[in-house]
Amino acid sequence: MRASQYLITTLKEAPAEAELISHRLMIRAGLIKRLGSGLYTWMPVGLKVLRKVEAVVRDEMAKTAKALELLMPAVQPAELWQESGRWEFYGKELLRLKDRHERDFVIGPTHEEVVTDVVRRDIKSYRQLPVNLYQIQTKFRDEIRPRFGVMRAREFVMKDGYSFHTDFASLEKTYWDYYNAYCNVFTRLGLKFRPVAADTGSIGGTGSHEFQVLADSGEDAIVWCPTSDFAANIELAEAVSPAHARPAAAESMTKVHTPGVKTIAQLADFLKIPVEKTVKAVVVDGVDGKPVLLMVRGDHSLNEIKAEKLPQVKSPLAFSTPESIVEAFGAAPGSLGPVNFPGTVIMDRTVDRMGDFVIGANEDDMHFTGANIGRDIPEPLVADIRNVVEGDQSPDGKGVLEICRGIEVGHIFQLRTKYSEAMQCTYLDADGQSVPMEMGCYGIGISRVVAACIEQNNDDKGIIFPAAMAPFTLAIVPVAADKNPQVAETADSLYQSLLAAGVDVLLDDRAERPGVKFADMELLGIPFRVTVGGKGLEKGIVEFAIRATGEVKELPVGEALALIQSNMAV
Amino acid sequence: MRASQYLITTLKEAPAEAELISHRLMIRAGLIKRLGSGLYTWMPVGLKVLRKVEAVVRDEMAKTAKALELLMPAVQPAELWQESGRWEFYGKELLRLKDRHERDFVIGPTHEEVVTDVVRRDIKSYRQLPVNLYQIQTKFRDEIRPRFGVMRAREFVMKDGYSFHTDFASLEKTYWDYYNAYCNVFTRLGLKFRPVAADTGSIGGTGSHEFQVLADSGEDAIVWCPTSDFAANIELAEAVSPAHARPAAAESMTKVHTPGVKTIAQLADFLKIPVEKTVKAVVVDGVDGKPVLLMVRGDHSLNEIKAEKLPQVKSPLAFSTPESIVEAFGAAPGSLGPVNFPGTVIMDRTVDRMGDFVIGANEDDMHFTGANIGRDIPEPLVADIRNVVEGDQSPDGKGVLEICRGIEVGHIFQLRTKYSEAMQCTYLDADGQSVPMEMGCYGIGISRVVAACIEQNNDDKGIIFPAAMAPFTLAIVPVAADKNPQVAETADSLYQSLLAAGVDVLLDDRAERPGVKFADMELLGIPFRVTVGGKGLEKGIVEFAIRATGEVKELPVGEALALIQSNMAV
Repeated sequence: MRASQYLITTLKEAPAEAELISHRLMIRAGLIKRLGSGLYTWMPVGLKVLRKVEAVVRDEMAKTAKALELLMPAVQPAELWQESGRWEFYGKELLRLKDRHERDFVIGPTHEEVVTDVVRRDIKSYRQLPVNLYQIQTKFRDEIRPRFGVMRAREFVMKDGYSFHTDFASLEKTYWDYYNAYCNVFTRLGLKFRPVAADTGSIGGTGSHEFQVLADSGEDAIVWCPTSDFAANIELAEAVSPAHARPAAAESMTKVHTPGVKTIAQLADFLKIPVEKTVKAVVVDGVDGKPVLLMVRGDHSLNEIKAEKLPQVKSPLAFSTPESIVEAFGAAPGSLGPVNFPGTVIMDRTVDRMGDFVIGANEDDMHFTGANIGRDIPEPLVADIRNVVEGDQSPDGKGVLEICRGIEVGHIFQLRTKYSEAMQCTYLDADGQSVPMEMGCYGIGISRVVAACIEQNNDDKGIIFPAAMAPFTLAIVPVAADKNPQVAETADSLYQSLLAAGVDVLLDDRAERPGVKFADMELLGIPFRVTVGGKGLEKGIVEFAIRATGEVKELPVGEALALIQSNMAV
Repeated sequence: MRASQYLITTLKEAPAEAELISHRLMIRAGLIKRLGSGLYTWMPVGLKVLRKVEAVVRDEMAKTAKALELLMPAVQPAELWQESGRWEFYGKELLRLKDRHERDFVIGPTHEEVVTDVVRRDIKSYRQLPVNLYQIQTKFRDEIRPRFGVMRAREFVMKDGYSFHTDFASLEKTYWDYYNAYCNVFTRLGLKFRPVAADTGSIGGTGSHEFQVLADSGEDAIVWCPTSDFAANIELAEAVSPAHARPAAAESMTKVHTPGVKTIAQLADFLKIPVEKTVKAVVVDGVDGKPVLLMVRGDHSLNEIKAEKLPQVKSPLAFSTPESIVEAFGAAPGSLGPVNFPGTVIMDRTVDRMGDFVIGANEDDMHFTGANIGRDIPEPLVADIRNVVEGDQSPDGKGVLEICRGIEVGHIFQLRTKYSEAMQCTYLDADGQSVPMEMGCYGIGISRVVAACIEQNNDDKGIIFPAAMAPFTLAIVPVAADKNPQVAETADSLYQSLLAAGVDVLLDDRAERPGVKFADMELLGIPFRVTVGGKGLEKGIVEFAIRATGEVKELPVGEALALIQSNMAV
């Protein structure tokens, strides 16, 4: 492609509201343009990146996941969502609308209902199963606060796959085919990523893995063990019980006045004790509507997803109001504890192994020191309700945990029969019995992959695209071609040779200063650049530069094509 | 692809509501599945057809139209439609919705507003023009009565292109590039089609061409001249004045009683005269709100689009109510005429050259015979207000007109400055003056092309796809492979060789009877079929069948690959 016939609209400045590096760089490089809140146009140079991601995904869907592509409508009748129960359950992120006849519809944020309807109409016999379908499609999710560009947009491109099976063994086989396909996709795209065990959240079902692109700015905390295969989203990662037993009580329990102390940090500071000697009290509504006291060590944090799954706790999780807390405990938050609290108390496993700790006394501005379970507090219910921290033992017992940040770009779920039961998606088995199908679903956020890639690969000059995702693999920059016809001739001849060799090459023949061209090609993240002109050309050489490393090589014009190809192949 | 690993869901019967052949066949062949009114899922085998159309379109967009692909959001802010004025103008076909913050949006049926917004933000100088962009995208149009499957669906796939220019000459150049690109697209897809001059309708602007796929069931009447290049939609085709002058009056005007005569056919029958001697009166509202009398020859029909463009006539066209007609004429419809009518009278060019004709007398159940312009009726306004009929002179004077039916699959428009003026999409010219851009827009109904193709190419066995659009180019049908291992071996070996040769081949290895397989492959419209098995194979031959002609050839197994390739190339 000749840049003079292309549309390159780079900007010096990113808009003020762009907080994330990838958002700023995508706007500055002209990959996307904002149309409205959470709505972006993919400009030609950005769409080229998106399409390269799509092509790799399609290839792996066919080869490794063995899925067939179809295309379902974006606009879906509300009846299907009522059938599955999600019409009520799904919040305002589901964009609902009425057609001219006042019938209810949604713009699909996901297609479980539609694909289940498609399959139940056509697939009747075990002989027709498994069925494995996917689409690449524009979705809509009415985010309350869209931000970060295409990272959390309202309209976005997604690959969503769905599989249907006679039994769980067949589902599991396809599930792992997708797992492998996703690993191949992100490897081929040149991304550093990690598959992690994940919570199944609102989609429901049993097993689930997320595929996380590693980046310091990632929203998700990923827990992993460098000495084993263990990796999980922090939402799910199990915090195991400490190896040691609960120590015997050494101190006696003493009530102390702690005026103005509201936080754990203030408490440790006031009492001049390590924060690990304190216990934090969190009060949530129980299934019976009464407050439930959850206890984690002072330096730990409650894992709300784990808490929500406790049978004693109301779902979705609701923190108790200050009024109901005062009524139940006789004190305001900041001084709460289990002593003399008649309700349900659930302690984290780590708290269960503590002795002589400090805890609120259920009187405002009062705490107990030297509290001990058994002696001062009845044996409580114990559960894993905290987030793991670095240095915790890995749940597989094979090392200690580390935590890094990631951006979720893929997610696979074993849905089991959640939708097929609700929507009567059944097949006749060999005995003529009607059985609900086992089901899996598998997503990749295609547009999000582009943002995540940039979040992972950038420097102060701009984007550093891996070759597989770059809008162009190589840019040729002629310098001062208007003053020396040999520059244009050499650049053009090289351009033609590279095109013929199948290289996705951009010839920057724009009437711009060399500095502008270099800056644009760097901002766009084009992996390789050949500069033609100046003293080098007089000596018969062109300059070959590698965006990721900054390395520059001089290549003799006569051998340039072959040397460029071998240098790009490295 | 092996059929056993594919999803073929053909049906014996089409649903009762499917009126059109293409709709019936697409449902029966399992290309599409209905989700709701005007909403269809493209099943894998149908999507493959759609994608082949898209690929040809993309190639011609890049090569011939020289356009760059981008992707704009489907959901568009209402503000842009308010800016262009179409928020008010566009009817209920525009699906409007509110997001969670109660802001107004539309699901785009077209993207003039969005692309104009994209361009006005980035393109500031004449040096950046022309800009030529297109997308292939899912659109939504809330049809009041969706029908005919994907021919008139609510959600559909469209290629929409938009170009921006400094001047009309540049617009015209790009307009003809698109014209050529569209001709190439439909030629490459193997369709019989015709580009025709067209009305610009609600899109506005000046020049316009439609691309019509010829089919007897088409909604559009296409007028063309076999001895010249003339072709136009009947909406636009000019009916020229008869070559002869107006004859002198021979009869005297006589009032006759025509009891119960309401239609032209009844009138000619009652008076025992040729229908060509009668004149039809149509009354519409004028710009001043008063009735305007339009007159066309009895056997001709009023062209409403031409009538609407008359300066004396209100737009949009409104037929006058019976009450206002009786008030203005003193008679009810069926007996209306120009004699003693004091209002505006506009005659078609053909009526202007008639003498001694029959016309309503403005008294119920009364007509005049022997009426003549000049003597009995004042010289009226004359205009082209009728539809042409077969046998009319071509407007280019190079022959006589014929009429055929077509399905509109493409439309190109010179929009000029309609949107750029309304939305301040301007550039700075060489003198630093701000000038609105000239604009063109160019659409292809991608999903409609598939339906139109089937409407044109089918028989009682099913679809007859041209090779360029077929889901598979060739099907191999092994017969009774379970009884003879040589059948499976030969079929499989041929399948592998054809795949390696780049042929898009389907091996029908399903455990079905041969009759079912043959019927499915014919219904699906696969252009070529190779049958392996039976007595033929014992003699060392396979059978090669051509779907379009029904021709069958016997090919020696050893030479099958080469002979299949040469036969397909014909």
